[in-house]
Amino acid sequence: MERIRAGIIGSTGMVGQQFVRMLDEHPYFDLVMLSSSERSAGMKYGEYVNWSLGNEMPEYVRERELKRTTTEDIKMEDVDFVFSALPSAPAKKIESALAEQGIPVFSNARANRMEEKVPILVPEINSEHLGIIEHQDFQKGFIVTNSNCTASGLTMGLYPLLELGVSSVNVVTYQALSGAGLTGVPSLAILGNVIPFIRNEEEAMEAETKKILGKFDREKGRISELETPVHASCARVPVINGHLENVSVEFQGDVNVHELVRIWKNFKGPAQELKLPSAPESPVLFMHQEDRPQPTMDVYAGKPERAAGMVVSVGRVRKKADNMVNFWVLVHNTVRGAAGASILNAEYAFRKGIFGERGIC
Amino acid sequence: MERIRAGIIGSTGMVGQQFVRMLDEHPYFDLVMLSSSERSAGMKYGEYVNWSLGNEMPEYVRERELKRTTTEDIKMEDVDFVFSALPSAPAKKIESALAEQGIPVFSNARANRMEEKVPILVPEINSEHLGIIEHQDFQKGFIVTNSNCTASGLTMGLYPLLELGVSSVNVVTYQALSGAGLTGVPSLAILGNVIPFIRNEEEAMEAETKKILGKFDREKGRISELETPVHASCARVPVINGHLENVSVEFQGDVNVHELVRIWKNFKGPAQELKLPSAPESPVLFMHQEDRPQPTMDVYAGKPERAAGMVVSVGRVRKKADNMVNFWVLVHNTVRGAAGASILNAEYAFRKGIFGERGIC
Amino acid sequence: MERIRAGIIGSTGMVGQQFVRMLDEHPYFDLVMLSSSERSAGMKYGEYVNWSLGNEMPEYVRERELKRTTTEDIKMEDVDFVFSALPSAPAKKIESALAEQGIPVFSNARANRMEEKVPILVPEINSEHLGIIEHQDFQKGFIVTNSNCTASGLTMGLYPLLELGVSSVNVVTYQALSGAGLTGVPSLAILGNVIPFIRNEEEAMEAETKKILGKFDREKGRISELETPVHASCARVPVINGHLENVSVEFQGDVNVHELVRIWKNFKGPAQELKLPSAPESPVLFMHQEDRPQPTMDVYAGKPERAAGMVVSVGRVRKKADNMVNFWVLVHNTVRGAAGASILNAEYAFRKGIFGERGIC
Amino acid sequence: MERIRAGIIGSTGMVGQQFVRMLDEHPYFDLVMLSSSERSAGMKYGEYVNWSLGNEMPEYVRERELKRTTTEDIKMEDVDFVFSALPSAPAKKIESALAEQGIPVFSNARANRMEEKVPILVPEINSEHLGIIEHQDFQKGFIVTNSNCTASGLTMGLYPLLELGVSSVNVVTYQALSGAGLTGVPSLAILGNVIPFIRNEEEAMEAETKKILGKFDREKGRISELETPVHASCARVPVINGHLENVSVEFQGDVNVHELVRIWKNFKGPAQELKLPSAPESPVLFMHQEDRPQPTMDVYAGKPERAAGMVVSVGRVRKKADNMVNFWVLVHNTVRGAAGASILNAEYAFRKGIFGERGIC
Repeated sequence: MERIRAGIIGSTGMVGQQFVRMLDEHPYFDLVMLSSSERSAGMKYGEYVNWSLGNEMPEYVRERELKRTTTEDIKMEDVDFVFSALPSAPAKKIESALAEQGIPVFSNARANRMEEKVPILVPEINSEHLGIIEHQDFQKGFIVTNSNCTASGLTMGLYPLLELGVSSVNVVTYQALSGAGLTGVPSLAILGNVIPFIRNEEEAMEAETKKILGKFDREKGRISELETPVHASCARVPVINGHLENVSVEFQGDVNVHELVRIWKNFKGPAQELKLPSAPESPVLFMHQEDRPQPTMDVYAGKPERAAGMVVSVGRVRKKADNMVNFWVLVHNTVRGAAGASILNAEYAFRKGIFGERGIC
Repeated sequence: MERIRAGIIGSTGMVGQQFVRMLDEHPYFDLVMLSSSERSAGMKYGEYVNWSLGNEMPEYVRERELKRTTTEDIKMEDVDFVFSALPSAPAKKIESALAEQGIPVFSNARANRMEEKVPILVPEINSEHLGIIEHQDFQKGFIVTNSNCTASGLTMGLYPLLELGVSSVNVVTYQALSGAGLTGVPSLAILGNVIPFIRNEEEAMEAETKKILGKFDREKGRISELETPVHASCARVPVINGHLENVSVEFQGDVNVHELVRIWKNFKGPAQELKLPSAPESPVLFMHQEDRPQPTMDVYAGKPERAAGMVVSVGRVRKKADNMVNFWVLVHNTVRGAAGASILNAEYAFRKGIFGERGIC
Repeated sequence: MERIRAGIIGSTGMVGQQFVRMLDEHPYFDLVMLSSSERSAGMKYGEYVNWSLGNEMPEYVRERELKRTTTEDIKMEDVDFVFSALPSAPAKKIESALAEQGIPVFSNARANRMEEKVPILVPEINSEHLGIIEHQDFQKGFIVTNSNCTASGLTMGLYPLLELGVSSVNVVTYQALSGAGLTGVPSLAILGNVIPFIRNEEEAMEAETKKILGKFDREKGRISELETPVHASCARVPVINGHLENVSVEFQGDVNVHELVRIWKNFKGPAQELKLPSAPESPVLFMHQEDRPQPTMDVYAGKPERAAGMVVSVGRVRKKADNMVNFWVLVHNTVRGAAGASILNAEYAFRKGIFGERGIC
Repeated sequence: MERIRAGIIGSTGMVGQQFVRMLDEHPYFDLVMLSSSERSAGMKYGEYVNWSLGNEMPEYVRERELKRTTTEDIKMEDVDFVFSALPSAPAKKIESALAEQGIPVFSNARANRMEEKVPILVPEINSEHLGIIEHQDFQKGFIVTNSNCTASGLTMGLYPLLELGVSSVNVVTYQALSGAGLTGVPSLAILGNVIPFIRNEEEAMEAETKKILGKFDREKGRISELETPVHASCARVPVINGHLENVSVEFQGDVNVHELVRIWKNFKGPAQELKLPSAPESPVLFMHQEDRPQPTMDVYAGKPERAAGMVVSVGRVRKKADNMVNFWVLVHNTVRGAAGASILNAEYAFRKGIFGERGIC
């Protein structure tokens, strides 16, 4: 199989580092370009970055020279596509500019997710949404986003159940510190504490969940969002990695817990069928223990090794009424909820030949 | 006003210590007896206890000799009533035995709460439930309980809203470590983690909430529980004190957020009317800040000083649908959710002359 | 006693807030002026500040208008002296400029501490150092500093022992997060971690300790530093308040642990003799328990209530060789190690009539 | 190479689990027996154990039946040697009894470490101490121990420097929670706190360091301890894994920091020469960054993968006087400081043919 050249824009933050870690010896992609802010330009990655993922900065990036995240410095000659780990504000403009130049962008930034023609792709859930990139206004490039970290956990737990007829969803989160970036939450604010507020998070989680679970009308070139109400309440907790979510689902009719467990256990999607490198054997892990999933124990669930952190763990499903169940979901917010999700999206697009269609050819 | 003599059974654990702290210079009660387990009998309180409430073990208890928690050692001649901070297992039997001897028991133990003739008293909410003690089978003593720590926060936030017609409630908790007692949660299990399971907690929270909010039929001598469904999901977080709860309430009709805020701000009950020593000026504090209440900041809310920790803080009320709101509640789990609640109950009973009726006279 | 008017420059940070808290209903000083950065000017204190000391922002400051920290906005007509809680960089210039205008400055900033004519005053230890202000170059104002947070604990534990002949000192610290200011340490960096490095801290701790314990030659107008070697190693730990320090002291001759304990217990200084409002009954608390002092338990040691956090706790003294002992010291880094120390200094100066001499008259 | 059969006694605790993890697919040893307490006998390992090392309980042990830790249940026919992860109290007797039966014991327990004829083996430091087993009183078996978790870090950092002439050592520790076992430290005691006391730890650290660094006199069959004074002060901090230690070393003459760094970087021992499976390429990693080593970042240092956690990281070496330096050491307390150390010892003994001499043949 031909390999293609990948870049990372915004490569030095928390999510940028996860991209770097997960692209080490990737079977499809060669990481050939790393960009960061103006002031880092020309420095070596290993010098500039404040590596925070344990004692394991991959050797292959240490000596790489950082580029500036500009259209002048990032050119189609040098890279076949880029991953974006930029903050929302700069992402909005530069991602479009790169796509305009013909460079496909697989983005973790929030900026373009809710744009009408941009898919929030989850290969296990809505692979057909990828089709909407044909309707984007760029000449050759395109933008594909992955979901918000919390929505990535919720949608994976929820999607398999939609076949049973869901009438409303209430989700309450316990979100890890890494979701706020390297310096997002001061220690004095959170040690021994819970902060029941994360700016814009509840709105994003609700909107993105409905878009991810929506239907793509190929002819009209539009995604119509799920109409089921989704209510989110979000809090920050003193956990390093792993968003835990309590999910309450009301169904249209009576449900059976065993049926739910069976559905989760059997759930697979195109990512599994194609055996994508970052796809876990099963995207949902149902845990039978009475006190799981837990962030410190289960956040890196997923096999093979390249898919560690790509599994969404589900547990403690309890029937609360004939037509209502409650369960817990755990997602690694910077892997399945960020870098890993974009990599899986690029793997899927690559195997579907999409780069040939609108991208590199 | 005549003062009366109080004892504490189970005085050396987390809740026992809160009783000791809060009874220091109490205007109605003289703490004259402290009991603990067999092996501590005869030791001084200050020697035996592993004091854990900061550098402030009140001087007045240091030299007190610990008694055994038995009917032989605890006699009506020595004490007018007792507070119980026992674990559930020993509480069941000894509380009844003491009541049988004629000693009123104000208990924080779970053991007797759901007994048909035992009230879960909250003076601001269901002061009339106290009447059920007349139907208890003891000759002179009686048992009054306070609610589970989580139910104490939920019911205080919920009760004032019942007048608007509530059709269902979903609550998700973030519970502090002190709720599990001095050695309940090993540090390796919870540092940087969330445990989405607390044994028996969800069941207790649901049942006690319905009982507290139920109606007392004085003639039949029976409390009929609230019929509104209450669904609870409970998790432990690495916080010292303060249970935070996310509450989703569905109403029978449309509601208005301003109306809710107004109701909470104006809410007062008999505890306030009687100006009980441990009653805060208002039992509910509505916080306007976008990111409050938070455990480390707000857990000791409440004035005057004796009522610190007796306020339930409410914040972030958001309308999720025409007839649905979501808000957060914070309760100090070992004060309003334990020792403080029982002390307030005893204060209420004392001012109502109940000790004279079935107790000390 | 006549009261005088105090201001706080840099009033909204961590130490600024401690000044505000501790000056509430102060018996000597009326807080009449609060300043902060340019962009807060004109706003109310209660609106601008991110209050972080628990649910207790004193009422008296909520409505106060913030001034800019400039010589134009802070005038002798309005204030008799100021406390400075500025960061080091801005402090250097503005503190001198205010003193030049005739306003005495009691500073917690590091900037001027090691200036030759500026005392690092600790009333229990080196009250005579205050005399050096006569040699400062200002016409009427002067600058008095308090020590670095870690040096304040070390010197209090060490000073009483100097009479036994100390030949060298090695100190290793466990420093709390509040020492780095409200947003100084990101949570991802410190949760479940220890950082064995605090920029400039070891150098400051060593130098300030030697200056504090040095001799003041009144005639030459100079402080000669202690010649005993002091070696410091500093680390940050995930603790909110309270620097714990392990101190190893080598003496010139053999020592006896009981003698040390006796010395600490009897130790008092001019602050105690004058019964200054913020002076604890004894500045050193020797703890006999085998596992104390501990930050969460002992950080607010000190009576009366106004002196809570002004006591330095000492414990676990162990003889390691005939002439060597090791012990632990705990100091509240933003009270005795910051705001409280400056307030005690101003109280001492006030009672000594110093404001009349070079200040307000 | 012939493989041999290993057992683990005390296999379900914190250190027992590390043994299980590290013996997975071990190149020399087949794990064939796991024992635990009486009440687990007959249960499967996967059912009984409270696995706490992340989501990775190795498959190969899940179905293994647990034996009782008794001489009846553990026989020479079934196992060639055992690792012991027992608590000190039961270890004392059963380890000797097994050795008496002819079963070599590689123990992590404290019980027998200071026995005169038992070596505390560290292959990089004192491989010759293994010779003392010839003097043990057992017919065929023997006991080899590894060091206390804190001593394992200190000795690795210190040993290479001894050639420069060391006159005294002072060490102050920041010890992780896993060192106290699965339930050793209650969360309420340590969250946001430091406990400056660990029972018996300072004494053990001092004594074991001197024994490890002592000389073995082969003829007399005795280890004479290092005479240099070693002073330890130990504290518990809220860290999961990794003991950080501040080490102050006084030399007999002047020293040069560059020389020390050079010595650490070049340091290797017999474990490296033999390329033992669990030996890291270099046992000491010197870190040049100004703020390292840190537990969360560096605790699993060590390559190849089987040696992760077997490296002792050293950093921040600073000269404090002509003949005095201070530096920091980090050791993974349950790997290099426990299970990994015993496995390395067994690997060394195996390659030296020791099992043939007194053990299995």
